[in-house]
Amino acid sequence: MQRGGARGTARDIPSATVGRLITYLRVLNGLEARGVERVSSDLLADEAHVSAFQVRKDLAYFGTFGTRGTGYTVSSLKGELKRILGLTRPWRVAIVGMGRLGQALADYPGLSEYDFDLVAAFDVDERKVGQRHGGVVVRHMGELGAAVAELGLEIVLLTVPVGAAQAAVDAVVAAGVRGILNFAPTVVSVPEGVKVEPVDFLAALKRVSYFLHEGALVEDRG
Amino acid sequence: MQRGGARGTARDIPSATVGRLITYLRVLNGLEARGVERVSSDLLADEAHVSAFQVRKDLAYFGTFGTRGTGYTVSSLKGELKRILGLTRPWRVAIVGMGRLGQALADYPGLSEYDFDLVAAFDVDERKVGQRHGGVVVRHMGELGAAVAELGLEIVLLTVPVGAAQAAVDAVVAAGVRGILNFAPTVVSVPEGVKVEPVDFLAALKRVSYFLHEGALVEDRG
Repeated sequence: MQRGGARGTARDIPSATVGRLITYLRVLNGLEARGVERVSSDLLADEAHVSAFQVRKDLAYFGTFGTRGTGYTVSSLKGELKRILGLTRPWRVAIVGMGRLGQALADYPGLSEYDFDLVAAFDVDERKVGQRHGGVVVRHMGELGAAVAELGLEIVLLTVPVGAAQAAVDAVVAAGVRGILNFAPTVVSVPEGVKVEPVDFLAALKRVSYFLHEGALVEDRG
Repeated sequence: MQRGGARGTARDIPSATVGRLITYLRVLNGLEARGVERVSSDLLADEAHVSAFQVRKDLAYFGTFGTRGTGYTVSSLKGELKRILGLTRPWRVAIVGMGRLGQALADYPGLSEYDFDLVAAFDVDERKVGQRHGGVVVRHMGELGAAVAELGLEIVLLTVPVGAAQAAVDAVVAAGVRGILNFAPTVVSVPEGVKVEPVDFLAALKRVSYFLHEGALVEDRG
């Protein structure tokens, strides 16, 4: 089966480049929403907070060239980036842990807008089982393995408490899921071949407070 | 006023190091919760997913040395990291945007556990103004400037829709807040001297799906 083109196929892309391509795609979505049809590398760079040279280098790598003076067509560049990033078909996701955050995520329209289809939700709490959120009915964690096979689950959004995170990850991996987005503010271990991305807002919050702390130290000395 | 020690004071720390120190702190919190009193650089490295050499190098930089064979005392290393990171006093935070995510954050116990005190919440929707979440009463965005002065707000958690993000950021900055944690999946601009950290779970989700996509491409060729 052929997916991706001859140049710059997915396996060759460094993760920093992948991160920038995702940012370009986000910028293009914003431009498209504002009715913008063409974008220069300068504007794309400005909105993505990188240099125009970096934008041109990243896109030339995939054989995507803008036209001098007119730049890129927003819709076609967006389509090209989605193809490269494997975002041309919906991904089947489930939420594990249906507390407040899990419920908020289930109802979040951004998931389906960006082609992530919520197909299931799980919790260990019998009182939550049977509740409906975001169009799915909460199942018991014991049904995870069967559900992965039945629904073709590909990615789990993990929104369980810190103390339950590693055990939940182990269960998710044992059920055959190889992609996990971890919202619990703790480091979890997975075997090779499984990808965990942390969404640790407390760590991000600490980076903000550190910036303010650092600034205060500099002012104290000045 | 003297904050921080003579060695390795805050202004000298590269941001990658700050990120690792935050991870070490998270690991130490986990160890402490499990009743562990001492930690070797090997164990700390293992749990933080970095090399033991990196751990020793990072900590020696601050004049913090473990004892060969017995390692570091968890509580004192934790205290030292908190001092370096400016986490020795609570930071005064507010939530701007009291939709589902804002409400979930207001009720999240991790904020106060990690010394971020929620002191206010704001929304533009009159129906939300006056509601109580996480111990604070929602105020109208028009009161932001007055509230910053009154409450000494330092950091805003921004949980508004994409289309409202830049205008909300501008209002937050105009009110005198210099630290923003941006949960809206869009890039926002701020003047120099203001720190924005994105918490973009959709971007993280795309990194996960890209990993799976990339793996599928490799398997197709194999």
